[in-house]
Amino acid sequence: MGETKKLNRVLLVGGTHGNEFIGIFLIKKFQQFPHLIARSSFETQTLLGNPKAFKANMRYIDKDLNRCFAQHFSEEEDLIAYEDIRAREIHQQFGSSGETPADVVVDLHSSTANMGLTLIIDRDDAFTLQLAAYLSSVNPSIKIYHSGDSGRSEDSFRSLGKLGVAVEVGPISQGVLKAELFLKTEALIHEILNFLEKFNQGEVLFFNQELTVYRYVKTIDYPRNKSGEIQAMIHPHLQFRDYHPLHPDDPMFLSFDGTVISYEDASTTHPIFINEAAYYEKGIAMSLTKKQQLPIHVEDDHQINVGNFL
Amino acid sequence: MGETKKLNRVLLVGGTHGNEFIGIFLIKKFQQFPHLIARSSFETQTLLGNPKAFKANMRYIDKDLNRCFAQHFSEEEDLIAYEDIRAREIHQQFGSSGETPADVVVDLHSSTANMGLTLIIDRDDAFTLQLAAYLSSVNPSIKIYHSGDSGRSEDSFRSLGKLGVAVEVGPISQGVLKAELFLKTEALIHEILNFLEKFNQGEVLFFNQELTVYRYVKTIDYPRNKSGEIQAMIHPHLQFRDYHPLHPDDPMFLSFDGTVISYEDASTTHPIFINEAAYYEKGIAMSLTKKQQLPIHVEDDHQINVGNFL
Repeated sequence: MGETKKLNRVLLVGGTHGNEFIGIFLIKKFQQFPHLIARSSFETQTLLGNPKAFKANMRYIDKDLNRCFAQHFSEEEDLIAYEDIRAREIHQQFGSSGETPADVVVDLHSSTANMGLTLIIDRDDAFTLQLAAYLSSVNPSIKIYHSGDSGRSEDSFRSLGKLGVAVEVGPISQGVLKAELFLKTEALIHEILNFLEKFNQGEVLFFNQELTVYRYVKTIDYPRNKSGEIQAMIHPHLQFRDYHPLHPDDPMFLSFDGTVISYEDASTTHPIFINEAAYYEKGIAMSLTKKQQLPIHVEDDHQINVGNFL
Repeated sequence: MGETKKLNRVLLVGGTHGNEFIGIFLIKKFQQFPHLIARSSFETQTLLGNPKAFKANMRYIDKDLNRCFAQHFSEEEDLIAYEDIRAREIHQQFGSSGETPADVVVDLHSSTANMGLTLIIDRDDAFTLQLAAYLSSVNPSIKIYHSGDSGRSEDSFRSLGKLGVAVEVGPISQGVLKAELFLKTEALIHEILNFLEKFNQGEVLFFNQELTVYRYVKTIDYPRNKSGEIQAMIHPHLQFRDYHPLHPDDPMFLSFDGTVISYEDASTTHPIFINEAAYYEKGIAMSLTKKQQLPIHVEDDHQINVGNFL
C-alpha cells in the first residue's frame, strides 16, 4: 500500500462559458456563502471563468475558453485573444506550478441538450471512476460521459487540474436560470465535495464494481449545402433523446423539404449533446457515444491511492 | 356596406432577432420554394429582418430591431446603430410610402418561454380579431396575446404594416432549430395566408362571436440587489406555466438562498414570456396579462371591411 496523498485544493469553476448561467450563479452563491462549500480536509476555491463573456452574455469574446488550455503559456508571448490571456492568468494561478495549484478542478457547464445531470470524465483511473461510481450511487439518474477521446482532456479548463471533471446539465437555454436544475446541480456539487472529503479522511469508499459510462466515439454534423448552410434539423423522434439508444436506420434528421435522414452506421449508438446551441458553429449536431460497463479495480486493501495520480 | 378593399401585399419576416432560428429558416425555405406561400389574390414577399445579427448568431448587433420602428426616418439623419439603418432601409422598402408597401406584416419570433403557438396582436379591429378567431378555430391550442398596451404597437417591426401581427413560438433555445415547432409554425403561417386569401376572395368568414385573448397588463422584473444583479430565479412551480393562472400568494420566484417570493397583487393574472432569455437585460422576468373574452362585432352583412383599417 502506497502512502495516501491528500487533496489540498479544489477549484470550482462556473462561467467558463459566459452564457451558461447555472454554473455562474452557483459560483456567485458560493462566493457569498463560502461555508456551503467548506470541508475540513481541503480548501475550496471558486472562480468565474470568463467574466467578460458573462458581462456580454456570450459564450466567449474571441474564442472558446474551454479549448484554450493546451498551451505552454510562455510569459513572453504576446497573446491577442481575450480567452488566451485569461487562460494564461488562470494557469498562473491554478496550474501545477501556479500560485495556488488546484488538485481537483470541477468545471460547471450547461447545455440546451437534454444532458440531465452528467459528470464528464476524461480518464479511466480508479480515483475518477470511484468518484463517478459514488455519484451514481447517490443519484442513479446521473450519467457518466467519458470524453477521453474527444480532445477535451488536452485543452479544456478541467485539464488544468491534476484531476479534472466537468458537470454538464440540461436542457436549459443559454442566458437563463432554471431553479429545478440549479438545485439539482448544487446538490451534485455537494456530493462531489463530500466524496473528496471522504477520500481525504481515508474512508473506504467502494469495492470492485462496474460503472456504466458513455464513451465518446465521434461527432456528427448537420447536413449542409455547399455554402455550409444547414439543410436539416434534428428529427423530432431524436430531439431530447440524449443517452437513449439510436439504432441503424432510426431517423436522425428531418430536412426542410421533409426528407428523413437516417442513422446509417452498423451499430447502435447513444447520442448526446443533441441540438446543443453552441455546437452549430462547431459543426456538431450531436456526439455519438458507446455505452460501456467499466470495471473499477481498486487496491487490495480497498483503498484508492490518489498518490498514483497526483 | 363599404367597398371592400383588397390586400395586395403580405410581408413575411423572420430573423428580426438574429438568434431566433425557426423564423429565419422558414424564411429561407420559403425563399427556396416560393410556391409554398403563393396565393392567387395577393403577393407574398419574404424578408430576413436582421441578417447581420443572424450571421453573428445574436439577437441584434447594436440595439433591438424590434424597437426601432417608431422613428420618422428622415433621409438626412446620420444613423449610427446598425438596426436604425436597417429599419430605415426596411421602411423605405415596405413602409406605407415605400417602394413595395406591405398591407400585412407577419413577423416570426421564438421564445425560450413556453409560449406554445401564439399570435400577437396590437389592435381590437374586427379584421385582426377575425384573423385571430379563424386561427383559433383551425387550431384551438393557438393563444392570442393582445400587446396593445405594451408599446410594441408603436415601435415593432409589425407596426410598419397597415395590419401587423407577430407569431411567437416556444419553448426553444436561442440559436437552435426544433423540428416539431418548425412544422407547427409553418402550418400556422399557411393558415394566416389562407385567411388573407379568403378575405380577398370575399368569403364570409365568421359571424359575431367571442374570442379569448390575453391582454398585456405590465411586466415584472427579477428581484435584484443594489448593483442590479439578479437575486432569485423563476420558481419551479411557475417555470413553463405560461398562460396558466397565477393567483395571489402563489410562488413566483425562488431566491438563491431558498426564500420563496410570492405573487402579491390582488387579482389572478396569466403570466407569459416567463423566463425569456432576451428579457433578462430588459428587466423582465415575465409579462402579466389579463385573460378576457372579447366580442367580435362584424358588419351587418357579416362581411369584414378591411377598408376601414387600410
